[in-house]
Amino acid sequence: MGQFQVRTDLALETREKFQEDNVEIKGVRVEEERIPESGIKITNVFIETENGAKIMGKPKGSYITLEAPHMSEQDEDYHREISQELARVLERLLPKKEKPVAVLVAGLGNREVTPDALGPRVVDNMMITRHIIREFGKYAFGEDETNQISGIVPGVMAQTGMESMEILKGVIKETNPDCIIAIDALAARSTKRLGRTIQITDTGINPGSGVGNHRHGLNAGSLGVPVIAIGIPTVVDAATIVSDTMSNLIEAMSQSVHLKELGNSLHSLNQSEKQDLIRELLSPSLNTMFVTPKDIDESIKRLSFTVSEGLNLALGASVA
Amino acid sequence: MGQFQVRTDLALETREKFQEDNVEIKGVRVEEERIPESGIKITNVFIETENGAKIMGKPKGSYITLEAPHMSEQDEDYHREISQELARVLERLLPKKEKPVAVLVAGLGNREVTPDALGPRVVDNMMITRHIIREFGKYAFGEDETNQISGIVPGVMAQTGMESMEILKGVIKETNPDCIIAIDALAARSTKRLGRTIQITDTGINPGSGVGNHRHGLNAGSLGVPVIAIGIPTVVDAATIVSDTMSNLIEAMSQSVHLKELGNSLHSLNQSEKQDLIRELLSPSLNTMFVTPKDIDESIKRLSFTVSEGLNLALGASVA
Amino acid sequence: MGQFQVRTDLALETREKFQEDNVEIKGVRVEEERIPESGIKITNVFIETENGAKIMGKPKGSYITLEAPHMSEQDEDYHREISQELARVLERLLPKKEKPVAVLVAGLGNREVTPDALGPRVVDNMMITRHIIREFGKYAFGEDETNQISGIVPGVMAQTGMESMEILKGVIKETNPDCIIAIDALAARSTKRLGRTIQITDTGINPGSGVGNHRHGLNAGSLGVPVIAIGIPTVVDAATIVSDTMSNLIEAMSQSVHLKELGNSLHSLNQSEKQDLIRELLSPSLNTMFVTPKDIDESIKRLSFTVSEGLNLALGASVA
Amino acid sequence: MGQFQVRTDLALETREKFQEDNVEIKGVRVEEERIPESGIKITNVFIETENGAKIMGKPKGSYITLEAPHMSEQDEDYHREISQELARVLERLLPKKEKPVAVLVAGLGNREVTPDALGPRVVDNMMITRHIIREFGKYAFGEDETNQISGIVPGVMAQTGMESMEILKGVIKETNPDCIIAIDALAARSTKRLGRTIQITDTGINPGSGVGNHRHGLNAGSLGVPVIAIGIPTVVDAATIVSDTMSNLIEAMSQSVHLKELGNSLHSLNQSEKQDLIRELLSPSLNTMFVTPKDIDESIKRLSFTVSEGLNLALGASVA
Repeated sequence: MGQFQVRTDLALETREKFQEDNVEIKGVRVEEERIPESGIKITNVFIETENGAKIMGKPKGSYITLEAPHMSEQDEDYHREISQELARVLERLLPKKEKPVAVLVAGLGNREVTPDALGPRVVDNMMITRHIIREFGKYAFGEDETNQISGIVPGVMAQTGMESMEILKGVIKETNPDCIIAIDALAARSTKRLGRTIQITDTGINPGSGVGNHRHGLNAGSLGVPVIAIGIPTVVDAATIVSDTMSNLIEAMSQSVHLKELGNSLHSLNQSEKQDLIRELLSPSLNTMFVTPKDIDESIKRLSFTVSEGLNLALGASVA
Repeated sequence: MGQFQVRTDLALETREKFQEDNVEIKGVRVEEERIPESGIKITNVFIETENGAKIMGKPKGSYITLEAPHMSEQDEDYHREISQELARVLERLLPKKEKPVAVLVAGLGNREVTPDALGPRVVDNMMITRHIIREFGKYAFGEDETNQISGIVPGVMAQTGMESMEILKGVIKETNPDCIIAIDALAARSTKRLGRTIQITDTGINPGSGVGNHRHGLNAGSLGVPVIAIGIPTVVDAATIVSDTMSNLIEAMSQSVHLKELGNSLHSLNQSEKQDLIRELLSPSLNTMFVTPKDIDESIKRLSFTVSEGLNLALGASVA
Repeated sequence: MGQFQVRTDLALETREKFQEDNVEIKGVRVEEERIPESGIKITNVFIETENGAKIMGKPKGSYITLEAPHMSEQDEDYHREISQELARVLERLLPKKEKPVAVLVAGLGNREVTPDALGPRVVDNMMITRHIIREFGKYAFGEDETNQISGIVPGVMAQTGMESMEILKGVIKETNPDCIIAIDALAARSTKRLGRTIQITDTGINPGSGVGNHRHGLNAGSLGVPVIAIGIPTVVDAATIVSDTMSNLIEAMSQSVHLKELGNSLHSLNQSEKQDLIRELLSPSLNTMFVTPKDIDESIKRLSFTVSEGLNLALGASVA
Repeated sequence: MGQFQVRTDLALETREKFQEDNVEIKGVRVEEERIPESGIKITNVFIETENGAKIMGKPKGSYITLEAPHMSEQDEDYHREISQELARVLERLLPKKEKPVAVLVAGLGNREVTPDALGPRVVDNMMITRHIIREFGKYAFGEDETNQISGIVPGVMAQTGMESMEILKGVIKETNPDCIIAIDALAARSTKRLGRTIQITDTGINPGSGVGNHRHGLNAGSLGVPVIAIGIPTVVDAATIVSDTMSNLIEAMSQSVHLKELGNSLHSLNQSEKQDLIRELLSPSLNTMFVTPKDIDESIKRLSFTVSEGLNLALGASVA
């Protein structure tokens, strides 16, 4: 199906799509591991060349995905095993320095739209230390290596009239953090991934990604400091649902006794004929719509704790 | 297409579907009017017989729809012209009594899920008078005919463990209102209707309706007092989008030069074959998903003012 | 100083006041214990006779107070040791039954006024099970003795036009819980107690108590089922601050070299002269004001987790 | 009474205090007017010299106060007459330019603490235009003189680890507004002023002011662009209440038959003796406490509409 409609912010899904189509991508390396105790599956997608980046439609860098089927379900300690795994991944990506690091955690997205509220909610739960260390010194917490954590919820353009990028850039210039951790709700291709996957990447957040579809990148290039992005898919684009449904339809038709003939004919359409078909099909209003689960409020509440806990674990201790 | 997937809470859309299919329904009377100054279109659907109710899949009664294309857009006074029209419709439906009426306004839905927060937000903006009249007497507001307005936000089952029906029934028994006005966010069939239509009905809220799909009816039968329901569509069921997309596909195919033959063949499938096809197509996870606009936060904010203002206009003055 | 201004919802403080004045109260028994590991101090005040109740200004029953100096401070696991102690106290007070109990948790107070939001926030964090057990049966959670937990946030009169008592009474009649646990923010006499004390009582909530000053009692008498009340002081009445300041003033004066003579004279005023003085002093607008800490948002956030965790511990397991 | 405890952010109250004490201040000019139709009283306090600034404890500049006794009460159109008067005052203070102005509205304070939420709530209700004008050009709203309005809610230090000043400074550097309008909840000396007074000043926000007591000034000096501050008192410092109570006490004592002698003696204490007395009296915990009305949620809701409406009126049209 035409790549243009099938939006996903997950490198994992982009790669799966190529696998489905039996396309091999040079410059993209994949490693998988599974943590037996917790059942968490970790997939590392490394985009290593410009060619790989072009095909994948994502910048060069590491995309690490934690998947756990029960992630969005109720759990007594908000899935501490996932938080711990997230902390381990983060510790690998954080800048290595001899002194404690200063980290600005940016909660992107719109607090007022439930599936887009992940970022703001994570910042609400962060252990913020910068002001305390600046007032009481580096021994404020009884150890001399406490990281300086600050947090910001820049809001969305309809609320502020400004790009997140403008706000972050200004705040970074004034406060000089060593590194940004940006949290954002993502769009997946498949409803099955919603609330069940965490993607951590050292490439920041790039145009067109996130629930609100950022226009400008938030990355080392635009902000001047390394940007680690943590995202969880909470929506599927309405246009993607329809487009994927098409694939299922064709599949269904070619396997149905009644419709086999039709399905096969559809299957035999070439790529551009299929894209024409989809374009005719899509209502333009779908482009401003998303699909999300009815219990998204409970998912967001729990996931924001899982992520903030992972951040607090990774940042609370010294990163010497 | 199979009626089972295409859910709509709007009597207007149900009727349109039959019109599309050129089906005439006995026992259903429709009147349309247009207010020239405001551009508001009012459609009255009267389901007058049990037969009409059965075909429409909705109880006997009046379904009045206000449509205004700009309803969900920004407006200095939150569309006072729509609030006024809503007040006029409400005044017709409210119980006629010689003394002031006691009205309980119930804000249904989930405050934590943006498109489902309409009801709770409307109650937030209501002029609540019951406690003042009970403390200071009926002259508390300087006139002797002030209505006793109370309000409740019962929450949803995942939050309370109780049905809205149980909570309302109990509260009604204790406080004896003459009438309930229930506000709820609805599911439409078409994304084009989202945030642009208000439905007012004297039949209450019935099983399967609303964003959260109520299991039990909230109506005169279950609650013992008349229930006027006010709803605005804010979501489309994900399954409905897919199902409607199918229709568009078939239509598109039969009009496309390349695919005319295929489309016609699909068109020629009988109803049950089409339903088989859709069943195979639908991912079961879609049943717990909805489609909503990205700017739903702004719509809900504005629409809740438009509705509460209409209620305040209708109820603020005496309904003698 | 005159009892009329010095409002406290804590039986502990009422009793301390009598101790300060060297008054012994018949019919009131006090037991203290201290948990060495956690540093928690538990005070049990048992009001055993009508006479004791009259003097204390509180109904007969048990008032158990948990005090921990660091309770309102930041803590990694939201003070699990306090939650555990709270659970132990609750388990003692819950009705003993052979089958699992049905408990309705009522979050009293006003969600929109930070120091009064404790109750609503606790209910937000409760594990609600009633609807699941009713749908999937008593084995829904894999054991046959799961308690049926429901929750309600009735709101305050300015929002609903109804008394909390009316709403709860109705909901209880419809859903028949075995017991109510009511959570409410309290008024203390001393700012030093704010956020550092939990009071658990089997007497429910009585007129004049809570931040919002309930007009009607919520107790076994008014609701027909046992009511356990859990409260944490989050405000001091503005009139109480002033009244207590008076006492401090007199004390300060009698110890100051300059003012000793004056202070002693004031000290020698009789009770009614002192009350006259205070009455002249108090601005009537103070009666509608409260005093609360600037960081009340962080306290309420943390305390609501400490309490909900205690409830989840006590109710999550069977109470056979 | 000692100036140190009696904090007020209202220039009007500072001046009244000097009037009470019959002190004349050179370099401070006062003009009063009353709008007959609306009953609004406008007081202009002009601090014109460095000497005046020193005595008043506030920077040189204009302090304009709108007072209306019914301001915090319920009103159908959120007191449009006050919004209009506020707009008139703002239009006078805004920079005069030939082209439309770019204004950044900063909602200071803590959204999670009800009396401190005024600023954030005002920004929630602002008509934000900057992003639309930047995308669709200056004719986006059909006229060529639309002001570019942006908005920010910087949060408080406990949430962000950063000073509001740091965040604003950075955002200003990136987005270059012509002028800042900062909205903040203030501390008054008297509970009678809470929610009934709006202060507009061209001096910005200065250290120690606001509910949260800003540490650094937000003014033309620190931010590099003119800062108009709009504030409404929503709290009284707890220490101020006690200190003022002292004055009332002494007054009451000197007028009471019984206590005349004592009161007169207290009255005869010199200023430093009185301050000693107050210092001994004040519990240090009072310094982190504030006094606010129980219905502060309703006041803040209404006042935020009154202010945002005033801003929308002043900024919506061209300020050529």
